[in-house]
Amino acid sequence: MNTSDTQNANRAREYDAADPLARFRTYFHIPAGTIYLDGNSLGAMPLAVTGRLAKTANHEWAEGLIRSWNSASWIQLPLLVGDRIAPLIGVARGEVAVGDSTSVNLFKCLAAAVHLRPDRRVILLEQDNFPTDNYMAEGLAALVGNLEIRVFDSTKPIEPHLASGDVAVVMLSHVHYRTARVQDMSAVTTAIHAAGAPVIWDLSHSVGAVKVELAQSDADFAVGCTYKYLNGGPGAPAFVWVAPRLAADTKQPLSGWMGHKDPFAFTPLYEPGPAVKRFVCGTPQVLSLTALDECLKLWSEVDLDQLFEKSRRLTSFFVELVESECQGHGLVLQSPRNVAERGSHVSFGLEQIGYPVMRALIDRGVIGDFRTPNTIRFGFTPLYVGFSDVERAVQLLRQVLEERLWDLDAYKIRAAVT
Amino acid sequence: MNTSDTQNANRAREYDAADPLARFRTYFHIPAGTIYLDGNSLGAMPLAVTGRLAKTANHEWAEGLIRSWNSASWIQLPLLVGDRIAPLIGVARGEVAVGDSTSVNLFKCLAAAVHLRPDRRVILLEQDNFPTDNYMAEGLAALVGNLEIRVFDSTKPIEPHLASGDVAVVMLSHVHYRTARVQDMSAVTTAIHAAGAPVIWDLSHSVGAVKVELAQSDADFAVGCTYKYLNGGPGAPAFVWVAPRLAADTKQPLSGWMGHKDPFAFTPLYEPGPAVKRFVCGTPQVLSLTALDECLKLWSEVDLDQLFEKSRRLTSFFVELVESECQGHGLVLQSPRNVAERGSHVSFGLEQIGYPVMRALIDRGVIGDFRTPNTIRFGFTPLYVGFSDVERAVQLLRQVLEERLWDLDAYKIRAAVT
Repeated sequence: MNTSDTQNANRAREYDAADPLARFRTYFHIPAGTIYLDGNSLGAMPLAVTGRLAKTANHEWAEGLIRSWNSASWIQLPLLVGDRIAPLIGVARGEVAVGDSTSVNLFKCLAAAVHLRPDRRVILLEQDNFPTDNYMAEGLAALVGNLEIRVFDSTKPIEPHLASGDVAVVMLSHVHYRTARVQDMSAVTTAIHAAGAPVIWDLSHSVGAVKVELAQSDADFAVGCTYKYLNGGPGAPAFVWVAPRLAADTKQPLSGWMGHKDPFAFTPLYEPGPAVKRFVCGTPQVLSLTALDECLKLWSEVDLDQLFEKSRRLTSFFVELVESECQGHGLVLQSPRNVAERGSHVSFGLEQIGYPVMRALIDRGVIGDFRTPNTIRFGFTPLYVGFSDVERAVQLLRQVLEERLWDLDAYKIRAAVT
Repeated sequence: MNTSDTQNANRAREYDAADPLARFRTYFHIPAGTIYLDGNSLGAMPLAVTGRLAKTANHEWAEGLIRSWNSASWIQLPLLVGDRIAPLIGVARGEVAVGDSTSVNLFKCLAAAVHLRPDRRVILLEQDNFPTDNYMAEGLAALVGNLEIRVFDSTKPIEPHLASGDVAVVMLSHVHYRTARVQDMSAVTTAIHAAGAPVIWDLSHSVGAVKVELAQSDADFAVGCTYKYLNGGPGAPAFVWVAPRLAADTKQPLSGWMGHKDPFAFTPLYEPGPAVKRFVCGTPQVLSLTALDECLKLWSEVDLDQLFEKSRRLTSFFVELVESECQGHGLVLQSPRNVAERGSHVSFGLEQIGYPVMRALIDRGVIGDFRTPNTIRFGFTPLYVGFSDVERAVQLLRQVLEERLWDLDAYKIRAAVT
């Protein structure tokens, strides 16, 4: 350790000691020797989930059998779990439904939004949004036949792209999956509404890490992922929200029986359930859904303002240390430098060697990820990542770069002897 | 016990003693004192699933974290689990994808089928199919706008309904959810093809209990549920099959990233994966999917011909005993009397008292279910239901009817003192 290492380590320890959220780390399983900076892709496991899965299987399924749809409230889980998410996205209980995937929920919202503006035929998308978002719009447009997809650069103002007056709906990510750039939800929603269109927000990379105020922003639709900062488990069911002012007029085409106003009446024709219930479709995957329910319980103890503040401080500390400790190795910040415009992950461009550097880091216990063509990405989940993790991760990144541990041949030789 | 009870019990014991599938009951948890005749709604729990869930959570998720998408093959599960289902529906490995719900998979198939016949605009449905099937068609038709839904009585020949020459697709249940009536898949498929349309078979009430020969019947699309006779867990992910001859031309609108030919290439436009992979949509719900994977393993040991034979013998024994032992109480067989036309459940009509009778039965440990307006329904899962279960269930049914235990007031009094 050189002097700056010592100073950085001391600072990190001070920050950790003063962290009001530090205790939440004990709620999670973090593998020994691992600094997990990929919770923005798959969150770490809350320890309570194991017991809940066993209970769902051994008590509710094995013993309760079919009766558990009522006695264990399985039938109500899509909305009950939604109630746990509501305060994290700035909406009221009863407004969120959980189930299906983010992709499927985007389809429901896109179709519902287009139905609200039958006189317009343009779906406006970010040109580099997370791919599945735009693929789903593509699928809808191809199916319906007379819809047009347009893309725009969402790092620039949206207004010019709305001026044509033919935009039926805009779909945007609140936090960009690659750069972590945060959209100003309120301002962008206002601009879209001024052009007469509704907006669908994808909250996958913001919920649980960045402040989300759907109601206050007067947003229309939102979807999001629960396996990132919400730590709900691999592929955990997604959520969907529709503004109460729209819900009663909303029609979505995946009109499965669980969205019916009375599923067991077995009426020949579909009659949509009230409000967001009509966004539920088929039978929910109960094992994944009860696991998610358990994982979300801890959020009732979290002070969200402390959480957002810690997120900003973690990413700022990381950027500062990388830029001071890893100079001269070609790292270029791809995330906004202004913390107010940045979500809870940080991306650096690293030409040529991005992938092998990340591989070498992972093998040394620092788990981040790589996105083509040249991005190394690090996520900071405030509930279980500490400042000392950040400091240690940067030390290891510097070591990988300085000692050229990323050099694939040399790296293979080292791997073979350990 | 009277003489016929003794004779019936002796017959049941003989049948059980000679049952080549009897050992499979030990693979399942059946609650003490319970005769479970609702496996056609939610199958009993295979004991192995508990360990698998713990492994998925504690080893793959908690320790492996994001790496488990590759190291634990999560990314491949939709097709790997599909390979376990393929032999149960008479198709080859690589042709089945697992994920989403039956409802969502029906939507994919309906849209894909309509795309195959853009010159035709009629979707032909059974008038009393399981509601979600028809609701999904309704949702598609309302979205696309120029599709017409027609219904027909599927207990009568389909040919007259195909004669108009405008049917784009037919969707049918292989085994009817209420009556258990089995469609002649081969003959009906041939008739539909002769009219130039593809067919979608819903196998939810047949797979795992009744012979399914999709390939030999030259069928086009199929979907099915895995939480009934496949015992995959509450709301377990559904499956979808598309005939190989159609797969390459098939376009389905829920074009999520996991159905892309290279999801991590992050291409701006969707490029469908090969064959049935393009029917995968969003990120799979891994906890539910690995549980299902485990539950399906035992099927490699099952002799399917023995299974189908046992199913027929169980339902026949039940019908025989009910009609001989419960005469005079108004029970009317609603399922086909001919065993060749009957799936693995049996429904009786019971006017007025159907619901309280089923409630009284359930409280005495015989779990079946009730479907409005007057159906009591009993499912016989050959893997864990024995002939003595059948015999005992009929005895209890007779007792409930003879002693009027279904009389709600009297029933409440009895419940209060025990």
